[in-house]
Formats: sequence, structure tokens, C-alpha cells
Amino acid sequence: MLDERIRCSRLKDKIMTAEEAAEIFKDGMIVGTSGFTPAGYPKAVPKALSERAKKGEKVEISIITGASVGDELDGELARTGVMTRRYPYQTNKSCRDGINNGDIEYADMHLSHVPQWVKYGFFGKIDIALVEAVAITEEGGIVPSTSIGNSNVFVEKADKVIVEINTSQPLELEGVHDLYSPANPPYRKPIPIEKVEDRIGTTFIPCDKDKIAAIVITDIKDNTRKVSPIDDIAKRMAGHLIDFLENEVKHGRLPEKLLPLQSGVGSVANAVLGGLLDSKFEDLLIYSEVLQDSVFDLLEAGKIKFASGTSLTISPERLEDFYEKFKDYRGNIILRPQEISNNPEVIRRLGIIAMNTAIEVDIFGNVNSTNIMGSRMMNGIGGSGDFTRNAYLSIFTTQSIAKNGDISSIVPMVSHIDHTEHDVHVIVTEQGVADLRGLSPKEKAEKIIENCSHPDYKDMLKEYYNQAVKNSKYKHTPHIIEDALSWHKRYLETGSMKI
Amino acid sequence: MLDERIRCSRLKDKIMTAEEAAEIFKDGMIVGTSGFTPAGYPKAVPKALSERAKKGEKVEISIITGASVGDELDGELARTGVMTRRYPYQTNKSCRDGINNGDIEYADMHLSHVPQWVKYGFFGKIDIALVEAVAITEEGGIVPSTSIGNSNVFVEKADKVIVEINTSQPLELEGVHDLYSPANPPYRKPIPIEKVEDRIGTTFIPCDKDKIAAIVITDIKDNTRKVSPIDDIAKRMAGHLIDFLENEVKHGRLPEKLLPLQSGVGSVANAVLGGLLDSKFEDLLIYSEVLQDSVFDLLEAGKIKFASGTSLTISPERLEDFYEKFKDYRGNIILRPQEISNNPEVIRRLGIIAMNTAIEVDIFGNVNSTNIMGSRMMNGIGGSGDFTRNAYLSIFTTQSIAKNGDISSIVPMVSHIDHTEHDVHVIVTEQGVADLRGLSPKEKAEKIIENCSHPDYKDMLKEYYNQAVKNSKYKHTPHIIEDALSWHKRYLETGSMKI
Ligand SMILES: CC(C)(COP(=O)(O)OP(=O)(O)OC[C@H]1O[C@@H](n2cnc3c(N)ncnc32)[C@H](O)[C@@H]1OP(=O)(O)O)[C@@H](O)C(=O)NCCC(=O)NCCS
Ligand SMILES: CC(C)(COP(=O)(O)OP(=O)(O)OC[C@H]1O[C@@H](n2cnc3c(N)ncnc32)[C@H](O)[C@@H]1OP(=O)(O)O)[C@@H](O)C(=O)NCCC(=O)NCCS
Repeated sequence: MLDERIRCSRLKDKIMTAEEAAEIFKDGMIVGTSGFTPAGYPKAVPKALSERAKKGEKVEISIITGASVGDELDGELARTGVMTRRYPYQTNKSCRDGINNGDIEYADMHLSHVPQWVKYGFFGKIDIALVEAVAITEEGGIVPSTSIGNSNVFVEKADKVIVEINTSQPLELEGVHDLYSPANPPYRKPIPIEKVEDRIGTTFIPCDKDKIAAIVITDIKDNTRKVSPIDDIAKRMAGHLIDFLENEVKHGRLPEKLLPLQSGVGSVANAVLGGLLDSKFEDLLIYSEVLQDSVFDLLEAGKIKFASGTSLTISPERLEDFYEKFKDYRGNIILRPQEISNNPEVIRRLGIIAMNTAIEVDIFGNVNSTNIMGSRMMNGIGGSGDFTRNAYLSIFTTQSIAKNGDISSIVPMVSHIDHTEHDVHVIVTEQGVADLRGLSPKEKAEKIIENCSHPDYKDMLKEYYNQAVKNSKYKHTPHIIEDALSWHKRYLETGSMKI
Repeated sequence: MLDERIRCSRLKDKIMTAEEAAEIFKDGMIVGTSGFTPAGYPKAVPKALSERAKKGEKVEISIITGASVGDELDGELARTGVMTRRYPYQTNKSCRDGINNGDIEYADMHLSHVPQWVKYGFFGKIDIALVEAVAITEEGGIVPSTSIGNSNVFVEKADKVIVEINTSQPLELEGVHDLYSPANPPYRKPIPIEKVEDRIGTTFIPCDKDKIAAIVITDIKDNTRKVSPIDDIAKRMAGHLIDFLENEVKHGRLPEKLLPLQSGVGSVANAVLGGLLDSKFEDLLIYSEVLQDSVFDLLEAGKIKFASGTSLTISPERLEDFYEKFKDYRGNIILRPQEISNNPEVIRRLGIIAMNTAIEVDIFGNVNSTNIMGSRMMNGIGGSGDFTRNAYLSIFTTQSIAKNGDISSIVPMVSHIDHTEHDVHVIVTEQGVADLRGLSPKEKAEKIIENCSHPDYKDMLKEYYNQAVKNSKYKHTPHIIEDALSWHKRYLETGSMKI
């Protein structure tokens, strides 16, 4: 079986244990790993590395990934103090705690910017690329597993490459990937994608065999998160969103088959895609990052014609089923490097409908997706900025309240901004839809408060806004500067935004 | 002479006075005009239209432009109440006053988004395109004057087209423009620009002759703004910036001839480009929006090989000189529609070095370029977001203080955000440079305070930051939520941010 997985016989000399491979890491190194929202990340070597730290060795390293990775990597390395610096996206509890208590220096970046920075040298030299793969070809080409992320650029730029061949990942994944790496300016050419399904590259990551320093065989499964069942609130949001899209079609502002859809992560995102199952839309296209369970439901139901992403994130309970049926979907899926899946050029050209989730939104349409109460990092901006800014239509969903109603997700001023009002076209809560296109800040405020806010907070929001319009000396974006963040202050002091 | 300017004899029937053309406008119309930072905007017809309002007629219209336009348009129509809605950028005092006292609904948009929105129908139907031109060709093609902006998409989409042939604009401008309009998704193709100088379209705006409803002959000159002389502060900023670029070249992160430069508007931007005159850089390229005086100085000095923009904005005192020498520069200049000059696809492909100006910056690297004290609209975001987000390197300049030192331009939290920390690589003030690439928020704060803040405010900033690190429960982006905007509050109450 290993002959199928490692087809270059010369490279078999490089097979070693995870413990042996872990010795290659030195204190102070910069390491790029595979992994995206947590699929296709390395598992055995990080665990072995954390064992070194547990024995008292000092190995502090910077980790750059595609996006979020599982506990075997982010959790282990955060808890053992190996990870001192982290880019660009994470969702692991231990990692997040380390970031928020000040132990881990975290820089939250647009996912499409990371591969460029690696190639421009902005992170410094990448010492090691640590990537999961299903196979290595005759020529040393690395066939990724359930995600690509930045694996190709790490392999391109790192001094040494360590490959985890994961035998729990089906070999049938081979052929699904499409690897393409644009040159740096001034030599960069147009990315020749004109349709969601266009193939432009190779099915493996080209790699100089001499750079491969270790091959580790593992069979640890992707540790993806459970998808919460679709609740009533999520269903209402999905319903509003689909009504909105239908209305756009009716008015000729969207084609009948819509345009390629991008959908963020999390339960609401999953519910929204789920909602399309019962809609009358047909022959849909997905151009996104993460292909979640709902994408496969839609493929099975024949609602989706083709889906392009950079990772296949299947929930634990669906994984077996997915592997079984995978051959049926294969021809309708493509995985691309995040430099391509999230590329502004391609997103704008294809005219994506972007649907992402906000933590909070302010009355003027600014969105916070990362820093709770201005300070506490949740996950990161991920690819939401890449899609939102370049989308044909940019939609944000959020429940109108959080924490059992002690928090209004619609506030006078958000405590942190990831997406400015210039990039937010439509807001959807379970209360309704606010179409903000072409409105001035004052008109946006009136519409957001009226259509999207929770009844418990609507009058308070109106009161703030009316006072601001009355008393603000300048009325373009009326604010009462000393009260703008008072709702957050009240929550921090009393545990509720209510008065 | 008119034969040269209006080459289609059938269209001569459409020649009329500005007053007659002004009668075509009806109450409630949406009008798209030429004009960009203020060059190439229509002048005679708007003036005539404002006369109708002065006589008591109700004509309230929405105006969409390329970017800022002169007083004959924005000033007249704002003062007479004709302009009730305005997109996407302005710099005129009367217009700005109207926006800030609540009379004009203004939506501040990314300049590259506007042409798409027109073509997608997001603004509704465009009733009239009102554009300045130097000539109309045999086939009805419109040859723009000193700017393109959105003129081509307005002409494409409007029911009626009104052309102001401006005989004060030299006919030699013909040939400088390069008109290209990408199709809407799902039919859009790659924009085939691989080099700053690539020509991909026609030298005129194609126009159905039957749509031309009026031709008005005028000779009113572009009413551009004076460029302030380069002062010491601006020189110091330019010096820091050039040192920084030289250091990037030294470390192999930039090629010797740099990459194409974009430069924002205003005096500092002009000074920075001016600073390149005395630098050792050679054979530079410009890929920007506005080509200001300094670009022509650099062309004359042989420092610049080629410059691409969407407008030629020459200061009044240089205009005669410019017209005289124009034939020498012609081969080295191209004007593009703003859908192309500001296109994320092209900006990212070419790898632009973006240099824009901030009003204020916070310690975590977020930038406010539009809303003074969170409420008062200055100009608008313009193209700064198009360039900043997609740049190879994104640099913001600002003086460390404003209003004679009563304002610190470095604050704990900006009162409005146009560019988030994800998009800001480098900050330059007269005090120094903060290179923020790869840093966590805390590291950014320390560097910005240390390198960029004014001595009068440095200790106050350190005090805020240290207290925030100490007391903030979550330390990713340490803030004291009740004090974050207290500097602005103090300024509004006492006239100074100082204690
Ligand atoms: C915004 C985001 C965190 C929402 O995730 P989700 O799973 O749909 O949302 P939830 O409603 O479960 O909220 C997540 C947490 O935020 C909290 N929260 C939600 N709204 C809040 C608000 N207004 N104020 C404070 N906390 C809030 C929830 O209570 C929950 O907290 P908990 O983990 O302590 O229970 C997530 O979508 C994200 O990280 N987005 C940014 C990246 C992105 O968009 N990626 C897509 C392309 S990669
Ligand atoms: C930011 C911007 C306003 C600066 O313009 P500038 O001419 O270089 O800057 P100035 O220093 O003259 O400042 C302009 C005004 O803002 C005020 N100002 C500057 N910093 C300030 C601060 N931190 N707080 C309050 N006011 C401030 C100045 O006092 C001045 O006010 P005044 O007109 O009442 O005298 C201008 O660059 C802009 O509009 N940028 C956004 C659009 C853009 O970037 N376009 C480029 C691509 S199109």
C-alpha cells in the first residue's frame, strides 16, 4: 500500500517516525503548515513536537497556516508553549485563550494576503513546510489531502519540507486539487479562470525531492467540528436571505441561476446554504473557501452544479458517508490554493454573492467579526474580507441578540471594525433584511434599526440615533462620541446591555 | 474649428445653449457626470441648471460622478438645492457643508465599485450622462477631456447623453485615453493588462449617436486647486518614506526600480512624489488615479518612464506650461476608466506601492480618512481602499498632530474606520516610520507610539496603552472601552486633546 502512497522509491529513505521528524524543529523557527478550517492539517508531528516541550526543551516557533487547524496542532502547541506566534486564522480554544491572555502574538490577516507575503519575504524565511498529503508522486509532487490552503507556497519557499502521509485520507482525493501559483510582480499574469470549474494547474504541489526532509506515516482523522442542528432562528435568517435573492432576480439585478455563492463558516452559514435545498433555485455554483456538509447535501440533491473551494470540511458524523459517496461528487468539486480561492481578481470577475457572519453590526453598517467587546479575539477575519470587498453582492448575517438577549448585536458603534460600511451591502437578522445599497449613513441607520434590530433594543437604538441627529454638530454620520461605546461599557460592568 | 471638434455632421443639429440643455433635466432624475479630482467635469450645463433652481423651479437630482468635481458643478448645485443626493467622492466646500448639515444625502463609496454598480443597476436607471469632451468622432465616439472617471459607463447606461465640448481643453488629448469596459458576470473576462503601459481599448467612448440629446460648446477651464508649497513637515515625511523604500530594496523585498507607485491626493502626497526627484530611484512607473503636477516634474526630469491614471489634474499656475509641453509627455501617459485604474485585479497583479493619507490613525493601525471626530465628512474614501487593500505595500502618511497641536493624529481608537489594521502595512509621520507587517496588535501599538507619535502626546498614549494592557480582561487588542474615545470627547468639549 505504501507503494501507492509514496511512488518515488528514492524518497522511502526519508520515512521516519513523528518523533524523529519533530527533532528537525529548532527554537526560533518559522513553520508553515497545511490545514484549512480544520481539514488537511498535520497531526502526528505537532503532537511529537509538543512532547519535546513537555520534557522541558525550549522550542518556541511561529506557526503560519492556511486557516484554522485541529487540536493536535493549535491545541497541543499552544498548551505546551511551543507556539509563540500565530498567523492568520484560528478557532482552537487553547490557542484562542493563549492569544487573549497575551501569551501568543497573533496577527489576524486576510487569507488571500498570506501566500503573497510568504512569496514576497514579508514573514522572513520559512524554515519548514509541514504538510499533510495523501500521496507523493514519482517526481516528488505532493498530493494534498482535504485542503490546500497555503501548502503550495510553503513548499515552494521553505528550506525543508516534512510530509505527513495520512492513510485515513482516501487516495481518491487525488485529481480534485488544482495547483497554480502566480508569479510575483512585475511578472505576474492574469489568472486564467473564467468559470468556477476551470482547471488551470497541476493536481499536485511541485516539490524538489531534495527538499523533502522527512516523511511520516499517520492515520489520524481530521478532527472537524460538529455542525449544530439548524434551529428556528437560523431558519428565519435563511428564509429572509432567500427571499431577498429571489427579489433581486425578479428585478433583474441577478440572473435566474444566481451567481456563484460564497458562504462563511459556522452554523448560520450552514443553515443558509441548507435553506437553498428547499428554494426554487437550480444549477447553482459555489466559489468559496470551505465546502461544508450542506454543500454535499446540495450536490446530492442536484441543486449545485459545481463547487470550488480550498478545503473539504465534513463533520465527524458525515465523514464515512462522504468517503463512500465521494466518487460520485469528484467530477463536481475542485480544490484550489487559497491564493486562488480567495483571490480578489477571480472573486470580482466571477461576481460572487458573498454571505458571511458578523459578531456585531452598527447602525451605520460597519461590521465586527473578530474582537468581542473590542478586545477579545474570537477567530479572525479569515477570508471574509477577500470575498466581501470584491463581491457582486455582500451580505452579512447575524442574530439580532447574543448571550440570551443581554447583548444586542446591533449597536450604536461597533467596538472593532473588520468590514467598513463601504463593503456591506445587505444585513440579515432573524428580524429581517436591510438593503443598504446607495443609502447615506443616516438612511442606513434608520433601515437597520427598523428592519434588523431586536424589539428589546429597538427603542434604545432609536433614542441614541435621534439624540445623535439632534445634537451632533456634524450630521453626516451622527454620533454622540461619549455614548457611542456606552452599550459595551454597560455590558462589561453589569453583564447586560439593557438599562 | 468646430469641424475638428464635432466630426459627425449629423450631430451638429444637437448643438444648443447650456440653458436649452439644462431644460432636459427633470425633478427626481439620476445623473451621471464626468469629472475626477477635479478635472474634466461639465461646467456650463450645471451652471445653467442651477439658474433654473434660482428662479424657483423644483429640480432635485441625484449626482454620481467619477470623483471630485469643480465648483461649477458641486458648488452651484449644492448651494441651489438641486443636488439632493451625491455619490461617491467630493471636495467642494458647499457640497461638504450640505452633507454635514444634513441637506445632501451622501454615500461614500470605493471608486472601483461605482462603475460596477451602474452596470449592475444598483443605483437604478441612469437618466442622463453629462460629460465633458474634447471632440466627437465621425461615429459618435466621445473623446474625453482631462479625465475619464465613470464617463464611459454613464454613457453606456444612460437614456440620454449630453456632451459639453470644451474648446479650452487641447485637442492633443485625443489618443491619450484607453477605453475598456469589462462585461458583467458571468461573462466577464480577465482584464488583459500586464504592464502599466498596456493599451487594451479604444481612444474614445463608443456611443450610439441617437442617444446624444445635446451638445453644448464651452471654454471654461478646469478649476483645479492650488497645490500648497512643500513645507518642512512634508519634506520630513517624504524623506522617511524614501528611506524606508530604499531599505526594502536593500533587503530584497522590492526590485531596484521599485514597483508601480500610486499616490493619494493632497499636499503630502504631492511632496512625497516630489521627494522622489532627489532620490536615486530611476525608471519609475506610476499606476494611480490622479496625475498631479509632481508626476509631470518627474516625467520631465526623466525619473518616470510611464504614468497611468484616470485624470490629469494640473494646478492653475502650471496649466499653460503643461498644455505647451503636453506633446512631449503624450507617449508616456495613459488615461483609463476608473473601473480599470482602480481595479483590484490590475492593482494586485502589477504589485502597486500604495501611498495614501490618513486623517487619524490609532495605536493598533486602523485608519480614518473621512469622518472627522467620527461625524464630519471631509472628502470620502476615494480610491484609497481600492489601492490599499490590493497593494504590494500599503503605506499611510499623516502629520502626527493637527490643528496646531490641539489634535494628536495618533489616538487610542480612531473615531471612524476606513482602512482596518489588516490593510495598513506602514505608517509614516514626520516623527518616523512604523513598519507593522507581521506584528500583533500589541506590538503594533508599541511601534506606532514609539516611532510615529508626537512628543506632546507620546506619554499620554503610553499611559493609555499600559493601562489597557494591565486592566483589559482580554489582551489581544487591549482597550479601555470607556476611555477609548475620550480624546475625541475632550477635543469636542475643550478644543484640545491635551489634558
Ligand atoms: C463571526 C463568527 C465568530 C460567528 O460564528 P458562529 O458560529 O456563526 O456564531 P455564534 O453565534 O456561535 O457566535 C460565536 C460566539 O460569539 C458570541 N457572540 C455572538 N454575537 C456576539 C456579540 N454581538 N457580542 C458578543 N459576543 C457575541 C456568541 O455568544 C458565541 O460565544 P461563545 O463561543 O462564548 O458561545 C464566525 O462566523 C467568524 O469567525 N467569522 C469571521 C471569519 C469569517 O467570516 N470566515 C468566513 C470566511 S473564512
Ligand atoms: C485624508 C485627507 C483629507 C488629507 O488631506 P490633506 O490635504 O493631505 O490633509 P490636510 O493636512 O490639509 O488636512 C485636511 C483637513 O483635515 C484636518 N485634519 C487633519 N488631521 C486631523 C485630525 N487628526 N483630526 C481632525 N482633523 C484633522 C486638517 O486640519 C484639515 O482641516 P481644514 O480643512 O479645516 O484645514 C485626504 O488625503 C483625503 O481625502 N483622503 C481620502 C481619499 C484618498 O485617500 N484619496 C486618495 C486616493 S483618491
